[in-house]
This record gives sequence, structure tokens and C-alpha cells, in this order.
Amino acid sequence: MKEIDILIKNGTILTMNKETEIIENGFLAIKNGKIIDIGKLSQQTNDIQAKKIINGENYLIMPGFINTHTHSAMSYFRGIADDLPLKKWLTEYIWPIEKKYVSPKFVKNASELAIAEMIYSGITSFVDMYFFEDETAKVCNQIGIRCFLGEGMMNFPTPSFNTTDDNLKFIEEMHDEYIDNDLINFNPAPHAIYTCSKENILKAKRQSDKIGSILHIHLSETEEEVQESIKKYGMRPVEYLHKIGVLDENLLIAHCNWINEKEAELLAKYKVNIAINPESNMKLATGIPPIKNFLDYNINVSLGTDGAASNNNLDMLGEMDTVAKLAKAFYKDSAFLNAKEVVKFATINGAKSVNKQDEFGSLEKGKLADVILISLDDVKNIPLYNYYSHLVYVITRESVRTVIIDGKIIMENKEFKTIDIDKVKQNAYSFAKNIKNDLSVHRVREY
Amino acid sequence: MKEIDILIKNGTILTMNKETEIIENGFLAIKNGKIIDIGKLSQQTNDIQAKKIINGENYLIMPGFINTHTHSAMSYFRGIADDLPLKKWLTEYIWPIEKKYVSPKFVKNASELAIAEMIYSGITSFVDMYFFEDETAKVCNQIGIRCFLGEGMMNFPTPSFNTTDDNLKFIEEMHDEYIDNDLINFNPAPHAIYTCSKENILKAKRQSDKIGSILHIHLSETEEEVQESIKKYGMRPVEYLHKIGVLDENLLIAHCNWINEKEAELLAKYKVNIAINPESNMKLATGIPPIKNFLDYNINVSLGTDGAASNNNLDMLGEMDTVAKLAKAFYKDSAFLNAKEVVKFATINGAKSVNKQDEFGSLEKGKLADVILISLDDVKNIPLYNYYSHLVYVITRESVRTVIIDGKIIMENKEFKTIDIDKVKQNAYSFAKNIKNDLSVHRVREY
Repeated sequence: MKEIDILIKNGTILTMNKETEIIENGFLAIKNGKIIDIGKLSQQTNDIQAKKIINGENYLIMPGFINTHTHSAMSYFRGIADDLPLKKWLTEYIWPIEKKYVSPKFVKNASELAIAEMIYSGITSFVDMYFFEDETAKVCNQIGIRCFLGEGMMNFPTPSFNTTDDNLKFIEEMHDEYIDNDLINFNPAPHAIYTCSKENILKAKRQSDKIGSILHIHLSETEEEVQESIKKYGMRPVEYLHKIGVLDENLLIAHCNWINEKEAELLAKYKVNIAINPESNMKLATGIPPIKNFLDYNINVSLGTDGAASNNNLDMLGEMDTVAKLAKAFYKDSAFLNAKEVVKFATINGAKSVNKQDEFGSLEKGKLADVILISLDDVKNIPLYNYYSHLVYVITRESVRTVIIDGKIIMENKEFKTIDIDKVKQNAYSFAKNIKNDLSVHRVREY
Repeated sequence: MKEIDILIKNGTILTMNKETEIIENGFLAIKNGKIIDIGKLSQQTNDIQAKKIINGENYLIMPGFINTHTHSAMSYFRGIADDLPLKKWLTEYIWPIEKKYVSPKFVKNASELAIAEMIYSGITSFVDMYFFEDETAKVCNQIGIRCFLGEGMMNFPTPSFNTTDDNLKFIEEMHDEYIDNDLINFNPAPHAIYTCSKENILKAKRQSDKIGSILHIHLSETEEEVQESIKKYGMRPVEYLHKIGVLDENLLIAHCNWINEKEAELLAKYKVNIAINPESNMKLATGIPPIKNFLDYNINVSLGTDGAASNNNLDMLGEMDTVAKLAKAFYKDSAFLNAKEVVKFATINGAKSVNKQDEFGSLEKGKLADVILISLDDVKNIPLYNYYSHLVYVITRESVRTVIIDGKIIMENKEFKTIDIDKVKQNAYSFAKNIKNDLSVHRVREY
């Protein structure tokens, strides 16, 4: 008799493995944080004794979503400044408000809110870029979510560090501290080529090589950024990154709205990973990513929600729906970017983007058990003819009922197991009440 | 002591009245299907005795959404053929499947599913175009939702009628039958200018004049339709409708993606109403409505979900989010189409589009009580800085908790009061099981 931790029985398993196999009436066995068996229920051996059995009937069982670009602590700025021109949004609202409010306590509390929302939405891993990421790490560790934390780095002092050297020293210390923790990963995160010098980007690159992490950067989000790069460096952003020697498979670049063919070729050649953020980019009117080019060049594309100050949610199901529709509208082709491809963006491609496709991103024997259960029985979800298109065009995040990360149940039937949700809400209400009294915010509320 | 039916206390009331007044700590009194009083809780007289008191604390109280273009019975075709070229979608899937399956019983059962989804999503009125609309009327009357039903009319026989004369006779009979029922409204609905002759459109127009209803038609959904119109009539679709004399404030046209300046001027001059369907149009890549032109000309713009075969949901909160982001991306202007304007699209403009803005679409004394309560306390909905942008960019349909139509509670805390939801689901499952055995559908499922 083999003893395991969790057995999920029945239900339809969307494996997202190489063959994108779908197992109807399946089972999934979890032990010590890993998937130790998966298959047709009829082939399950009877000598399994499970501490916990989950009935997956009428559920879609699939890998958790991987949010490959966000700023989790910005959840407290959700909707603080909407419908504004980008420059005004950034310079008159976001930057001054960040300067005034961002602190270790702020990051701790706001990260808790963001992570609660992400788990609610079926996200089991996320790639973050913000400040005081040690606070975010503590929260992730306590709640039990997988994360890739990048401490935002710029030429000038940030809320957390006065110098880039201090920033990078911190990354190394954090990396060492969490080296035996497979949930928490740290990486350098130079903010952008217009806020970081060549020297600083290269320092960050050396750091990422040393600790074996990804390097996370914003790139080509706006057309202005490209014009500035051409003016300053005589070349476009991707060409510049190529010239200074940071293009490789450890690089994860966010946004990429303004990439031409030559740049796409370079990104493909060096196996660079792209995290597109369609909802945020639409809302701030910064551009539309040229997805067709990316796919034509076999570039690995994943999905990010960006922060809640721009999006204003952390919802990968919403993001999948939007990106599929946006791509069709943009390319005037309803057959382009089919739902299956979009589900890859949100799962296995996300794992690839942090070079962990052998560890998670699909449901396969030996992989880490990051699994979600989505109800197919909600009145808004019937009838069902195709699992992929249903997931992209029909299902919303409220149908995500149970979330398992690293083999542990983090949410069960919408009930958080490791989060004191009333406390999280109370903290958010208190913060919002204070910030609302700030005149600069009050101004926004009146439109 | 004045006796009333429902008193909603506390909460924030988004009135959507002419001054778009927001009442914090408000109250709303309902009697005999109407709003008999509304205001600050502090101003409420104490001599009210309510049969039912609803605590609106931590809720947003607002007019129900008005879905101004849908094909409700197509809910059974939700996701039956996705990611296909438009022509293939229509001619190889939708039309043959409709021909084979659409019957009075189909319409009854599929309408029930659609209406359950709409109520779940906070929709209190909808404008429909399909077949066997007498079945839809019975369902709407039984459930208690406000509707504007148009029996789809074409030059050729439809599943319900062999001739257009029979179709129009039916409309008149139905209009007479429901004349004292303020929930159920019937109107002629010529499908499009490429499926209806001039004579048939004019017959429908005379019918709508006679019974005092709207006239509902698809127009300028695709670029091909415009080219065809130019080729056939020597003019663009709106110019054609103008020439044959059907442009007026009773006309409600759906889609309108391909409208030029001259046409927008005509639509404005004749006070024609437009129902845009951004999600469906994006997904089928049929075009993007020129919203800026419409607003520049002060044309009344409302929102439709279209049918679940194309969208694939009946969700006005999702539609609001998408249209705001789409407009910003399309016009490259993050300040364009602010959230307040979008909320108007989904409420008061919807009422205007059926010429009922004096009866519903906003919460005002004397208006019909179509009211929804949206929870602001869900973890994904905090913090909150601006009600309009929160509604558009943050809140999803699952936060709609209570729906009141015509003064009656139709859903309370997500529990349907007038729908046997298990039966509705069971019927949908049975239908889907049968249709899945159909080879033509099976083909779609395999991609």
C-alpha cells in the first residue's frame, strides 16, 4: 500500500504536456510536493492510500497560471489614477505616491492583498519587480506561492536602496538565504534601459549569471522609448541589449510592443523570453505586441498582468480572453492565435520564461504539484464543446475553486487556507482611507 | 406610516441621473415596481414601513445593465465553433447547426440559460433578435426580466416563419398580447440589408411605426457588407437606409464598425441609436467601432454582448472593461473613453436606445425599479478610489449579488428566485450531449 498526500479523482485533466494531452476521467497523485502519477482513472492502481482525496468531477484540472510580469505591491494603488495620459499617470500620480507611501510595511501588506487575489484567480507562480522584495519573499513563503522576485534597480536611489551595488548585494544575500526553498527565487531586475546605465545593466547581468537566475527588465513598452534609444544609442532597444551582451535564455523582457523584424530575429536567435501585458498596455495605450512576429520566429511568449495600478487586476483568465481577442482584431483574422496557444502562454510558456519548464508549467509525472481545479458546472460555463476555447472565452476566475501549490492546498473551494483574509482586507481599507485624504488622490476621484 | 415593498439602506448609490450624482450612505424605496424615493439616508423620513429591508452596506447600488444587442437562445451554441474564419464559422457551423436544431423547445430552454446568465451578470433588460420569440417572451415573463424581442426576418424562410408577412403579423399579435405587460416588448427585426429587400425593410418599418416599437437591424458589421452595399446600391449602408427612409430615433442598429464621417453625420441628424458589440467583433475580427466619431457627433452609443456563439458570454461588466481598453488602444490615447462614459453606455444610453430613458436606465424617483447590488468587499475589489473606474476595470460579474427588476427580487445574494437553475443546467447538458455526437461539431472540438 503506497501512501500519498493528495489524490484527485475524476474530472478532466488538461495536462499542457508536449502532446497537449487531455485526460477525461483522470486521476492525479501528489506526494511530497510532486506529481507522482497521472493518468486515466481506469488505470489507477488500487494500492494507493491518500491522506486527502479531492473529487474532481465536473472540474477542469490543470497547471496553475504563471503570471510572468507584475508589481504585486502596487495592488494598493489599484485604480488610483485611471483614464489619464501615460506621462501624467506616471509623473503626477504613481511616482509621487510611491515616493510618499512605499515602505517595508506597505510592501508586506500590499503583497498579501495581491497574492490573495492571484491565488483566488488560479495563479500559482509569479514574476515580480518592485521594492523591499524581502518583505514579499516572507509573505510568499508564509502563504506558500511560487515567486521570482526582482528588486527594482535604477541609476538613482529607490525607496529601498541608495546604490545599485547595495541592491545587487541584497539580491545575492536573498538568493543565498532562500537557496533551499524551491518557492522563493530572487533575481536582479534593472528597471529599463532609460533608467539604468550600460554599466548597471551589465553588473546585474553578471549577478544573474553568478547566482544562476533570470534577468528581468522592461523593454520597448512605448514608442517614445524606442525613439529615445535610437537617439541616445543609435539603435533600437533590442539591438542595444544585444550590443552590450545581455541577450540570452536567462533574459525575461516585459512588454515588447515595439519590436521590429530584425529585433524579433535577434530575440529568437538568443532564445530570449517575452512577457506580454496586453491589458495594461491597452489601458495605458502604450502599444500592441506584435504577437504574429513572435510566433513566426518561435519566440517563447508568456503572459503578465502587470501591476494593479495599470491593469487594474491580477487575473490571468481575463488576460487570456483579452489577448486572444486583441490579436484577432489587430491582425483582422479570427483564426489567428487560437485558444490552445493562449493557454500555453499562461502555463508552460510561463515556466519556460523562467527556465523552469522541467519543474512546473504542465501536469506530468515528476513535476512540482502546482495544480488548480476549475468548476465547469457554473451556470455561465455551460454548455462546453472545447476545453481550450472554454477556458479562454468563457471561464472567469471565480470558477477557480481549489489551488494547490508545491503539493499543498492553498485555497479549497474558494476558502483561503494560509491567508487571514479579513486582516488583509482590513489593512487595505486602512491604507486606502489614509491615501484618500491625500489631496493629489482626491483630485483623481472627482472626474 | 407609509408602507412600501423594498427599502435598500446604506451603501453607495450610483444614480446615473443627468448629473451622474453619487449618493454615499443612501437609501432607495421601492413600491409597486417603481422607485418612490431616493436620497441620503439622513434625509429618509422615519414613517416608512418596508416589507423587505436590504442592507446595502459595502455595496454599490446602481441601475441594472441593459444589453442592447443579443441573440439569447444562441447560449446553447456557446463555444461551438471558435477561432475560425468568419465565413467558415457562419456557413459551415452556425447556419447548418441552427437549421438542424432551432425549434420552439430549443429557444425556450436556451433562452432560460441565457437569461440566468444575464441576471447572474446584473443585466435587467435586453434587446433580442432570434426566432420563436414567443417562447423567449414566455420565459422572460415567467422569470421577470425586461426585454425587447425582435423576430429575425429575412427574404427567405426562417426556422419560425415561411414569409415576412407571417413574421410581421406575429409581431403585431405578440405586441397586442403583451400590451399591458411592461416587461415584454415586441418589435420587427429585419436581419440586415444583405438578407432583407428594400420592400421587406419598409414593411418592417411601417409595422414598427404602427405599434410604436423600435426597429432593430444589424448594420455595417463587416467591411465586405459595406463593399457589397456600394456595389449593389451605389452607396454605403447608412446612406442606403437614409435613402429608403428608415432613419429615425426608433431605429436601433447593431455593430456599426464601418461607419464613415458622412454616415455618422446622418445617424446623428436622425437620432439613430447604435449598439456596439466590441467583444464579439474582436473575436470574429469583423472590425472596431469608430467610437470617437460617434461621441463627437453626440450619437447615442450603447453596449451589446451579441450572442454566446460569438462572444462567448453575456457579460456587460466584461464588455465595459473591453470597450474602454479597446478604445484607448485603438485611438492610442489612454485618456479617451473614460470609465464614466462607459458606464453610461451600459445603463442610461441603453434605455435611450429603446426610447425608454424616462422609464429606466437610471435610479430616479418615479422610474421603474431595475436595481442591482454589487459587493465592494470582495478581495479582488479593494481598495477603491473611484466608483466608475472600479466598475469598469476591477469589478467582475460575480460581485453582482442581488438583482431587482420591476421592483421584484429576481436574484438575492446570487440565489435565483424565479429560475429552477438545476433544471436549466440539466437541459443544457442534455442538448450539448446530443449535439456533440453530431460529426460536424466533433470536428471543431479536435483542434
